[in-house]
Amino acid sequence: MDVKALLQQIAGGTVTPDEALARLKAAPFEDLGYANVDTHRHLRQGAHEVIYGAGKTAAQIAGIVGAMAGTENILITRVSRETADELAGRVDLRYDPVPRIAIARPKPIEQPIGSVVVASGGTSDIPVCEEAAVTAETLGSRVARLYDVGVAGLHRLLARLETVQSARVIVAVAGMEGALASVIGGLASCPVIAVPTSVGYGANFGGVAALLAMLNSCASGVSVVNIDNGFGAGFLAHRINTMEGCR
Amino acid sequence: MDVKALLQQIAGGTVTPDEALARLKAAPFEDLGYANVDTHRHLRQGAHEVIYGAGKTAAQIAGIVGAMAGTENILITRVSRETADELAGRVDLRYDPVPRIAIARPKPIEQPIGSVVVASGGTSDIPVCEEAAVTAETLGSRVARLYDVGVAGLHRLLARLETVQSARVIVAVAGMEGALASVIGGLASCPVIAVPTSVGYGANFGGVAALLAMLNSCASGVSVVNIDNGFGAGFLAHRINTMEGCR
Amino acid sequence: MDVKALLQQIAGGTVTPDEALARLKAAPFEDLGYANVDTHRHLRQGAHEVIYGAGKTAAQIAGIVGAMAGTENILITRVSRETADELAGRVDLRYDPVPRIAIARPKPIEQPIGSVVVASGGTSDIPVCEEAAVTAETLGSRVARLYDVGVAGLHRLLARLETVQSARVIVAVAGMEGALASVIGGLASCPVIAVPTSVGYGANFGGVAALLAMLNSCASGVSVVNIDNGFGAGFLAHRINTMEGCR
Amino acid sequence: MDVKALLQQIAGGTVTPDEALARLKAAPFEDLGYANVDTHRHLRQGAHEVIYGAGKTAAQIAGIVGAMAGTENILITRVSRETADELAGRVDLRYDPVPRIAIARPKPIEQPIGSVVVASGGTSDIPVCEEAAVTAETLGSRVARLYDVGVAGLHRLLARLETVQSARVIVAVAGMEGALASVIGGLASCPVIAVPTSVGYGANFGGVAALLAMLNSCASGVSVVNIDNGFGAGFLAHRINTMEGCR
Amino acid sequence: MDVKALLQQIAGGTVTPDEALARLKAAPFEDLGYANVDTHRHLRQGAHEVIYGAGKTAAQIAGIVGAMAGTENILITRVSRETADELAGRVDLRYDPVPRIAIARPKPIEQPIGSVVVASGGTSDIPVCEEAAVTAETLGSRVARLYDVGVAGLHRLLARLETVQSARVIVAVAGMEGALASVIGGLASCPVIAVPTSVGYGANFGGVAALLAMLNSCASGVSVVNIDNGFGAGFLAHRINTMEGCR
Amino acid sequence: MDVKALLQQIAGGTVTPDEALARLKAAPFEDLGYANVDTHRHLRQGAHEVIYGAGKTAAQIAGIVGAMAGTENILITRVSRETADELAGRVDLRYDPVPRIAIARPKPIEQPIGSVVVASGGTSDIPVCEEAAVTAETLGSRVARLYDVGVAGLHRLLARLETVQSARVIVAVAGMEGALASVIGGLASCPVIAVPTSVGYGANFGGVAALLAMLNSCASGVSVVNIDNGFGAGFLAHRINTMEGCR
Amino acid sequence: MDVKALLQQIAGGTVTPDEALARLKAAPFEDLGYANVDTHRHLRQGAHEVIYGAGKTAAQIAGIVGAMAGTENILITRVSRETADELAGRVDLRYDPVPRIAIARPKPIEQPIGSVVVASGGTSDIPVCEEAAVTAETLGSRVARLYDVGVAGLHRLLARLETVQSARVIVAVAGMEGALASVIGGLASCPVIAVPTSVGYGANFGGVAALLAMLNSCASGVSVVNIDNGFGAGFLAHRINTMEGCR
Amino acid sequence: MDVKALLQQIAGGTVTPDEALARLKAAPFEDLGYANVDTHRHLRQGAHEVIYGAGKTAAQIAGIVGAMAGTENILITRVSRETADELAGRVDLRYDPVPRIAIARPKPIEQPIGSVVVASGGTSDIPVCEEAAVTAETLGSRVARLYDVGVAGLHRLLARLETVQSARVIVAVAGMEGALASVIGGLASCPVIAVPTSVGYGANFGGVAALLAMLNSCASGVSVVNIDNGFGAGFLAHRINTMEGCR
Repeated sequence: MDVKALLQQIAGGTVTPDEALARLKAAPFEDLGYANVDTHRHLRQGAHEVIYGAGKTAAQIAGIVGAMAGTENILITRVSRETADELAGRVDLRYDPVPRIAIARPKPIEQPIGSVVVASGGTSDIPVCEEAAVTAETLGSRVARLYDVGVAGLHRLLARLETVQSARVIVAVAGMEGALASVIGGLASCPVIAVPTSVGYGANFGGVAALLAMLNSCASGVSVVNIDNGFGAGFLAHRINTMEGCR
Repeated sequence: MDVKALLQQIAGGTVTPDEALARLKAAPFEDLGYANVDTHRHLRQGAHEVIYGAGKTAAQIAGIVGAMAGTENILITRVSRETADELAGRVDLRYDPVPRIAIARPKPIEQPIGSVVVASGGTSDIPVCEEAAVTAETLGSRVARLYDVGVAGLHRLLARLETVQSARVIVAVAGMEGALASVIGGLASCPVIAVPTSVGYGANFGGVAALLAMLNSCASGVSVVNIDNGFGAGFLAHRINTMEGCR
Repeated sequence: MDVKALLQQIAGGTVTPDEALARLKAAPFEDLGYANVDTHRHLRQGAHEVIYGAGKTAAQIAGIVGAMAGTENILITRVSRETADELAGRVDLRYDPVPRIAIARPKPIEQPIGSVVVASGGTSDIPVCEEAAVTAETLGSRVARLYDVGVAGLHRLLARLETVQSARVIVAVAGMEGALASVIGGLASCPVIAVPTSVGYGANFGGVAALLAMLNSCASGVSVVNIDNGFGAGFLAHRINTMEGCR
Repeated sequence: MDVKALLQQIAGGTVTPDEALARLKAAPFEDLGYANVDTHRHLRQGAHEVIYGAGKTAAQIAGIVGAMAGTENILITRVSRETADELAGRVDLRYDPVPRIAIARPKPIEQPIGSVVVASGGTSDIPVCEEAAVTAETLGSRVARLYDVGVAGLHRLLARLETVQSARVIVAVAGMEGALASVIGGLASCPVIAVPTSVGYGANFGGVAALLAMLNSCASGVSVVNIDNGFGAGFLAHRINTMEGCR
Repeated sequence: MDVKALLQQIAGGTVTPDEALARLKAAPFEDLGYANVDTHRHLRQGAHEVIYGAGKTAAQIAGIVGAMAGTENILITRVSRETADELAGRVDLRYDPVPRIAIARPKPIEQPIGSVVVASGGTSDIPVCEEAAVTAETLGSRVARLYDVGVAGLHRLLARLETVQSARVIVAVAGMEGALASVIGGLASCPVIAVPTSVGYGANFGGVAALLAMLNSCASGVSVVNIDNGFGAGFLAHRINTMEGCR
Repeated sequence: MDVKALLQQIAGGTVTPDEALARLKAAPFEDLGYANVDTHRHLRQGAHEVIYGAGKTAAQIAGIVGAMAGTENILITRVSRETADELAGRVDLRYDPVPRIAIARPKPIEQPIGSVVVASGGTSDIPVCEEAAVTAETLGSRVARLYDVGVAGLHRLLARLETVQSARVIVAVAGMEGALASVIGGLASCPVIAVPTSVGYGANFGGVAALLAMLNSCASGVSVVNIDNGFGAGFLAHRINTMEGCR
Repeated sequence: MDVKALLQQIAGGTVTPDEALARLKAAPFEDLGYANVDTHRHLRQGAHEVIYGAGKTAAQIAGIVGAMAGTENILITRVSRETADELAGRVDLRYDPVPRIAIARPKPIEQPIGSVVVASGGTSDIPVCEEAAVTAETLGSRVARLYDVGVAGLHRLLARLETVQSARVIVAVAGMEGALASVIGGLASCPVIAVPTSVGYGANFGGVAALLAMLNSCASGVSVVNIDNGFGAGFLAHRINTMEGCR
Repeated sequence: MDVKALLQQIAGGTVTPDEALARLKAAPFEDLGYANVDTHRHLRQGAHEVIYGAGKTAAQIAGIVGAMAGTENILITRVSRETADELAGRVDLRYDPVPRIAIARPKPIEQPIGSVVVASGGTSDIPVCEEAAVTAETLGSRVARLYDVGVAGLHRLLARLETVQSARVIVAVAGMEGALASVIGGLASCPVIAVPTSVGYGANFGGVAALLAMLNSCASGVSVVNIDNGFGAGFLAHRINTMEGCR
């Protein structure tokens, strides 16, 4: 709906004020200017609509992709191998089984920008890491991976200090006691996004131990997303990484 | 410790390799270059050391301030009125009782930069908001306040949409059900830092309800800090707000 | 047991007071007038006995249905496809696989009354929504569905404001952070029944995050039922929807 | 803002479409028709704005009351005796210390309508009951109190069955094991609003035991509000009680 | 209400069946014989009504005691020293400050019967123990105390094995890890009532650690009451202790 | 080991005091008289050793049964159908699939004694009920079953009041909100053993809701065992039921 | 009781086997040799009985100290300043207000042995650290303190690596996210005892965050004691520190 | 990297100080001496690198084993039967299915040293016990097993008192109420490592009941590892067991 056109029609006498009022009330909210935000954001930040694949059928996903005609590199998260196989018969698709991410109408990112570092405590955290990394990469960020640098062997992290300290934003992924976020937060001078994972057992309580540790981090500059939410961390990391300079 | 000087002394023959090795092992880690990071960060980002005031006496705080000779606008968080009064007799101090923040050697921020928005769900959340806002302001950010825009009266927030959408980073502070973070996350295209507060009663469980809601936000681009952690949010908001442009 | 008949027999001398007293004590409680409530309620409100299907065999359900001779539109909730198939061989049945509700001796509701709105945050919440909607419809209410209007895209809900504001009662179904109930509660002037769902992961804790958010809603007029309890919400919504006018 | 008037000015040529568009975007959301809902609701349902007194000073409350010029029977909840005394010097006030409710510009409710029953498990639950009862009464409902009818002495409740069964809506308030809600839910045919209270000790966990019991009620037609939330229950009870007849 | 008399009046023709039916419906439930249970129980088991003192004023307690004319040894639990002093001016009272129990119209128990053993893990558990012991004693049971026999010094308990093994019922009171209940449960052949106490700190969580340990006891014959519920344990112990022989 | 024989050997000079001392220290503790308790208890109370079948193979169970030569009616709890079938080939066995209890060397209980009532809230609780009932019956108690008498239809329980009030001990089994224990506790004058079950969903948390409700019961004389612990309740009920008369 | 003497009396004929058997059953368990363990342990390990001061009066503590005639350096933990002052009038006492430990009959430890390191994350953890350190020192261990070496500034810990790596046992004390235990566990080759503290706020939950982190430590060789349990850690550290060499 | 060689090259003039500084910053941290700790520890304590098998493929494990050329008795924990079978085709392997531990390049421990006791509450705890026992044995410790000595039959443990009291370190493994750790802690004079297991049901909450009990143990000298963490306990037990004598 084009509000300005409507107002001009009133001015031109082809629409009465009463008719216009009725149309304004019935119109989708975005037609008043507010909802365009959504679209503008994607154009401005290179982040297209993302499809949360969990619980959706291949047909449903294909339908949504179809409705996004012209859009490339459409992220589809939490897609099983089976759904991906079925989907691949309907749309041009690249599937990465580790993070279980599918990308519809995949196109190479020619010039990834900035510097996102994704670090993991252990090898079991890698699927969550890759969800973050592939998300940020697909949106257009340059990503460096720093896996298996958990605090029980601190030298592995310290040996990569240069990488840590040159990042624009760091995604710190850890299960068990989740201490990686605090240690990285103390070494880095950029925003750190902590992702607790459900890796562990017993009093880990499916990631709660790491979540609480990360929320209580004694290092400044650390914030936290939901347990195993690699996508959320990767999306936010891309958003921070691609910020324009201040002023 | 000056590592380069030490190496030059080896080159010059005034120190033997064995002596140098012993000194390197004994030296504080930062002397090897890694710990300077801390100092560099402050210079680069305008963020001086912050003093966590809770549980410290006025004498202890004054001692730390004294050790930071030359530094201005030193943030001291969680300071009671009594401690602030006692401290004011020892150092040049400005005290803000709402967020309970004291600033030692206060100096006006001449040209605050960027645009941090601090939004609150209700009036009871304001002390936490002010902790975030004063922190970011003292570090050098320009801050806009958007208080009492909780989701039970959505029009209050929608009426300020322009402010929300022009921010570089938003701190969303809310107790009770913590829905503000999701609503703002859906309206804004910048990073959103959610701060759950302990405002509420009953099944609020001291902020847990808001914390869980924020961690489970269905909006992308939202991350969370600890309950009532206004300082952490303000510090991180300043860090994101003052990022240089990518590439 | 017919208490009045018994008393008349005493009056007529065919039963002694002592015999009558013994029978009164032995009789099921409802025979004294209290238990008739149950039956009266159904007649008065159009709500027949509902069968909770979980953990019951097709034979058991068929037995209960058989005992309700003459009753139509008997709701059977939480019925698996397998049980429904087996049951269909024994009783006249309509089965809806999304909410997993079976209706025995189904009969069209000719003139559904009032206006119940069932709103969902996301598409994954639809099974719970449909349990609520089909329950209310089967009992006789007119139901409008408002799906996928979660708070991360507020315009979707605002575009349907008329529907929200003309409802007699609203069932707000949401998982994740459960903010939908508060937002709808702030926009509507009718009773709102919030249903947290177990949709989500990590710190969602199987619906606890949404449950706590809904219990702490800052909007007045909102009450909550158990996680995933679509039936309970639909039943209560029908009860409120069909209330007679006051005085 | 009067949208219709604005549109008429466009039609009349005194305002250009561009100017009108700018004003529409800047106007508070309610000016577009959505926010009037709030006001309409109060007029239609007799429920004026309610002031949550906790954490507000007498001066702040008096200010809000002042802004509601002309409104009578303004509810102010969770007001301490001290604040009430101070407030009484500024506005015409009636204070009830049991539920800690103050009513500004009190006026007798001449003809309370409908039938709200407020029932309590024990005598310690009475403050929460009274918060519910006084809220509903002040809004205009007729309220019957049924206190100390907990399930450990079932005859106390059964002796009042007529009251239970003639209610239009029942507020069931209980601490400890919270069983009252289920028992009343099984006896009544109207909506039941359950309020868990923090009365109890040990494994009561400040009301959690009662809250969980109420959420898991095996009786249909029961919904739950937050622990100790007498106001919320009374408000919702009034809303349901004063519903107009269907169709 | 005398049901039999009513029925005789029908038989005698002085009351019509319709009038009788109306009276039956209006009568308190106990008049039909069911509610007398309460009274019968007290007569049969020597357990008079018990007054829960917490949150009641001395005046209220005195009122209840007054209404129990003729009853001796009335138990009043959770009474503060202040309330007891005030109460002592109104009724004949004996006060025991350790369990904070007052006994109105105290009279010596001439021949306490049976054998209740109350055992505690540590000295800090004694107030809860005494609440159990004084309750059972006041109701008429013989009680043996076995304090400070916690499992960290097993010989203390084993040295008193004869006492443990000759009890008719044992109340096992313990905080911290609550292991006493399991150890006693393994040594005794009578019912064991476990009482977790809130004694401890840290991961004790106000008695939760002991509560869970007792619920999970690997010994048969152990059941559990609420945290710190000495009264409940003493009451139940008396009930079991005074059982008549089977058949 | 026969302590008395040993002492007689010392007296007879065939064993020296030193040798005897060494043997006493090495002997199993029960040989000193303490451990015989276990055996005595079984003889005295008719309760033989019970085998917890979960996690044991048919071979292991058969081995234990073999070691209990001569003992009849050996209870084996939590036995799967498969294990029972395999076990039946090795020992004389009766298997009850509802409570999953097997009884080795089954023998009719000729004269069950006393009166244990097992009551359930709903039909889904019956497996736990039967575990309690069959346990008590196998040990020698007379058991009456009172199933599906949950509080949402109170008349079902009130109609069986005579049964409730003539019991020596009652096992009250309920899931969901667990209110049955309180209601029965208020009606009965005998010990009540409450068994929470994991029946329910959502905020039931696997039986926690019922557990908390039962621990917080406002009725005196109620104690609680672990969630789903029908065996524990049945064992304790038998122990209480078969108590000899006091004095 | 002297068992050997008793056996000799049997041998000598002055006691009959039956009399001896009776005496053996009545004797305290320790008389059979088992309970002496307690005493032997103290002699062997230099650890005298420790008095838990919380909840004990000065008179009670003085009584226990009196009963330990001859023992020096008696540890009394969790003693308030007031109790200590009162106690000092009765027994020779040294009081340390930071860990709130009193030592009765204090005597200098001439030659402390081994090497216990007590490390803390922050300055607020020092009271718990001192409880551990003073406990170990009083028992006879040499203790090195390493305070404020939290993981947010890793260089502080790395600068003291020599101390960490030369310890025989390390007590790692930390609140907030508790990461110190893992980092130290990764650097050290000796046993590490982790002590979570209740220092922190919000989602720290009184030390639960640190407790869970420590239990989930990815470093081998780490075990955990209760929240704030400095005494337990110091006692265990001393026990490990003073172990004799293997074989 | 050889730091000393580098320094000698500076001294020899073949490397400039600037080049050396650059190399130092780029070098892995361990080259500076800190990371060698890891290697030294293994040599000194006989503990080689341990492979956590959960979530690793046979190929990955074989790769790691291959990289540890020359190392014998490599522990691989949490290995399924399937993975072990596959692995056995690639490396010399011994597999123990009870604790699910594989040992690569197995070699008999000729002279196990010291005395580790592993005790269990019940037979279901044995897999966790064996994980601890086999770990300690493989590392070189002598291990005694004391299974099924739970506190419900105390005589079983007391009969083995000699074994308990002669241990250098005890691993106490228990599920359900976890009381074994406290009882053993009260009997032993050596360090006790408590391992809660997830054995149990209902309010056991997957081991939480035992975990809390063990953390709250009233016995001194007890510390705790994660639920089911037999490896952690066995590793720490070996470390303590093989300590050299103090001084």
